[in-house]
Amino acid sequence: MARLVMKFGGTSVGDVERIRNVATHVKREVDAGNQVAVVVSAMSGTTNQLVAWTKEAASLHDAREYDAVVSAGEQISVGILAITLQEMGVSARSWLGWQIPIRTDSAHGAARIEAVDAENLIDRLEQGQVAVVAGFQGIGPDGRIATLGRGGSDTSAVAVAAAINADRCDIYTDVDGVYTTDPRIVSKARKLDKISYEEMLEMASLGAKVLQTRSVELAMVNDVRIQVRSSFDAPDAAQGSGSGSNYVGPGTLVCGEEEIVEQEVVSGIAYAKDEAKITLIKVADQPGVAARIFGPLADAAINVDMIVQNVSEDGKRTDLTFTVPEADLERAEAVIEAARDMIGYVQILSDTNVVKVSVIGIGMRSHAGVAQKMFQTLADKGINIQVISTSEIKVSVLISSDYTELAVRALHSAYGLDDDAAA
Amino acid sequence: MARLVMKFGGTSVGDVERIRNVATHVKREVDAGNQVAVVVSAMSGTTNQLVAWTKEAASLHDAREYDAVVSAGEQISVGILAITLQEMGVSARSWLGWQIPIRTDSAHGAARIEAVDAENLIDRLEQGQVAVVAGFQGIGPDGRIATLGRGGSDTSAVAVAAAINADRCDIYTDVDGVYTTDPRIVSKARKLDKISYEEMLEMASLGAKVLQTRSVELAMVNDVRIQVRSSFDAPDAAQGSGSGSNYVGPGTLVCGEEEIVEQEVVSGIAYAKDEAKITLIKVADQPGVAARIFGPLADAAINVDMIVQNVSEDGKRTDLTFTVPEADLERAEAVIEAARDMIGYVQILSDTNVVKVSVIGIGMRSHAGVAQKMFQTLADKGINIQVISTSEIKVSVLISSDYTELAVRALHSAYGLDDDAAA
Repeated sequence: MARLVMKFGGTSVGDVERIRNVATHVKREVDAGNQVAVVVSAMSGTTNQLVAWTKEAASLHDAREYDAVVSAGEQISVGILAITLQEMGVSARSWLGWQIPIRTDSAHGAARIEAVDAENLIDRLEQGQVAVVAGFQGIGPDGRIATLGRGGSDTSAVAVAAAINADRCDIYTDVDGVYTTDPRIVSKARKLDKISYEEMLEMASLGAKVLQTRSVELAMVNDVRIQVRSSFDAPDAAQGSGSGSNYVGPGTLVCGEEEIVEQEVVSGIAYAKDEAKITLIKVADQPGVAARIFGPLADAAINVDMIVQNVSEDGKRTDLTFTVPEADLERAEAVIEAARDMIGYVQILSDTNVVKVSVIGIGMRSHAGVAQKMFQTLADKGINIQVISTSEIKVSVLISSDYTELAVRALHSAYGLDDDAAA
Repeated sequence: MARLVMKFGGTSVGDVERIRNVATHVKREVDAGNQVAVVVSAMSGTTNQLVAWTKEAASLHDAREYDAVVSAGEQISVGILAITLQEMGVSARSWLGWQIPIRTDSAHGAARIEAVDAENLIDRLEQGQVAVVAGFQGIGPDGRIATLGRGGSDTSAVAVAAAINADRCDIYTDVDGVYTTDPRIVSKARKLDKISYEEMLEMASLGAKVLQTRSVELAMVNDVRIQVRSSFDAPDAAQGSGSGSNYVGPGTLVCGEEEIVEQEVVSGIAYAKDEAKITLIKVADQPGVAARIFGPLADAAINVDMIVQNVSEDGKRTDLTFTVPEADLERAEAVIEAARDMIGYVQILSDTNVVKVSVIGIGMRSHAGVAQKMFQTLADKGINIQVISTSEIKVSVLISSDYTELAVRALHSAYGLDDDAAA
């Protein structure tokens, strides 16, 4: 017997038929003797409708009222899932954020979970009742509903898992696990059995959008083991031949690195196309200039990622290159132009035709030569590296986006990640 | 300055455009210096969708889960109305049933309001903030959302009005007041300026579906003055020529009879087509037989209305006639047939082709001849009366439904209710 959290997103509960499929997944775990808390998002169409109504009412709106409206979506889906489970003979009840309660800070619309009072939840779980928990929502210090912002249901699931001391948090999604790279680009991409929190964080923030970054951080801090698995496997079909609770594809376990016995040097190749490069030509090469550039950007809440400063030729002027999210490019240029006199540069150039490609692996901490292999592989293909940045467990380069597929495929092979059994 | 409750039903908040119209009504009262609590139903389409989903999930469902799902409808409409009011520059916030809280009993799906803790609400009203209250919902003793059942938003409005000591509870509806009878049948029907709670109760329960019966009872007990008025008058159009908060048609005031200075003998003619007649032929005419018939019906929660027992010809056998709601007819017949041996009758007859027509007026307490005028009027038109029942303020007769229009029109004229200025 295990205590599990199962999380299903908006597409998985998109209509009553799909909710029935979710209920079948839950029943499978209950029948296997497990205590189950299910965390669900709103039915996908509902959220869109609710957001559209708030926009129609006013373009700028009170975040607390927005939260009241949008959180109705999960209220609906948990009720319908509870009804469906009961119809299948599974004892279940719905829990809204304020009923548990899941306490958040006061940042309505993008609130952070501060505490989950799981006492009642645990009582019911121990009585064999499935807890159907509304994702994405909690109650703020003002006693009003607060939503967690985009992707918040993953975070709800991990927070509930931590609070009830779950053995595992299963995140059901539209992919069947975490891959060594994007299978749409590399047909030989291999599904990973395990990946460490740190690697997953790099994968997620670099564009492998399987799990919400915040949920992985929370899982790491609280030692919650996350299993990423597919909700589109039909649990019924396999029931005859299956082995208890494990006949659904096991997906990928996101866990502490101590659980990963055979650590690979490199676990995956990620890429992110939503970057933009800004180059400032002939910036004064003097103390404090970096602060004068990046201070105003930070004030504008623009996230600067890679930064490279050329060696100054004459000791007076240098070029400075950095990347920002493509969506913030125009704003970033405006901020810098407004600070032109203070910074003192000759020209500003920008380029959105770039991609950040990263090699990720906790094993590289104890292995030399990982970066060198990356540079050599790209050089062999004639791909020019524009910016480099490294951390303990990843090496990232910025290249022209024209070479995305070529670079990712070459690196995937170079680090021995190809699944040669695959197509 | 007055303290008002304004209530709008599902059609009045059917889409964002209509919600804007509601907000304009509210702004009018706020601009006139009034403290306002608005009680709203769910957007009409939403409720239908939510009910359909619960039915699709299971034909029989846990009423607590049904309540969680369906109450999301009002959660959406209050949020959107609050946003719309703020957009118009009116300070407003939404209040869900559990936030106030509106405490109910545990009868999920058809709960009764037990108390409204209005302290916070009153604080905010006194600060000039409009309270946008979710109708139809409260919180049960189990800490879960409980809905009040059909038409419950009227009841919410009256309960809130009582709790905040409102000067008036304005119920905005798709008619512009309470009429002497159904204007679809009698073009000369006249709108009443005032009607007493007792008369309104008879009108409502007899089929003039303007206000929910329970809301009128609650208003009577708590001395809440209800104004029935139309939400489809465009408040903007009349603003120029209007006189403060009263330029929208005043509708009909439902109040205590002491407020009605000139009491009419008869205030209105009501009719109810959803009745069915059951006749038991040759029932044993002996003590206890009525209990043996109506006991099983009461146990089956079937509401018996009119009852007439013929005088026994031989002192041994008699015929007994009564009415039940048409929707319960089949069930009533089954109950009686199951008790046939105990009751002892020869034959059971039923007829759904009947209508109950009633003459209503508090003035008839002190006036003789009201019933006689009814019988004479119907006799003059050749209409046969099948069953008669009377109370202090009404006389009802059961007749063939073929004569509905003829009877209602003749009675409306006979009691001097025709508005001769009308078409």
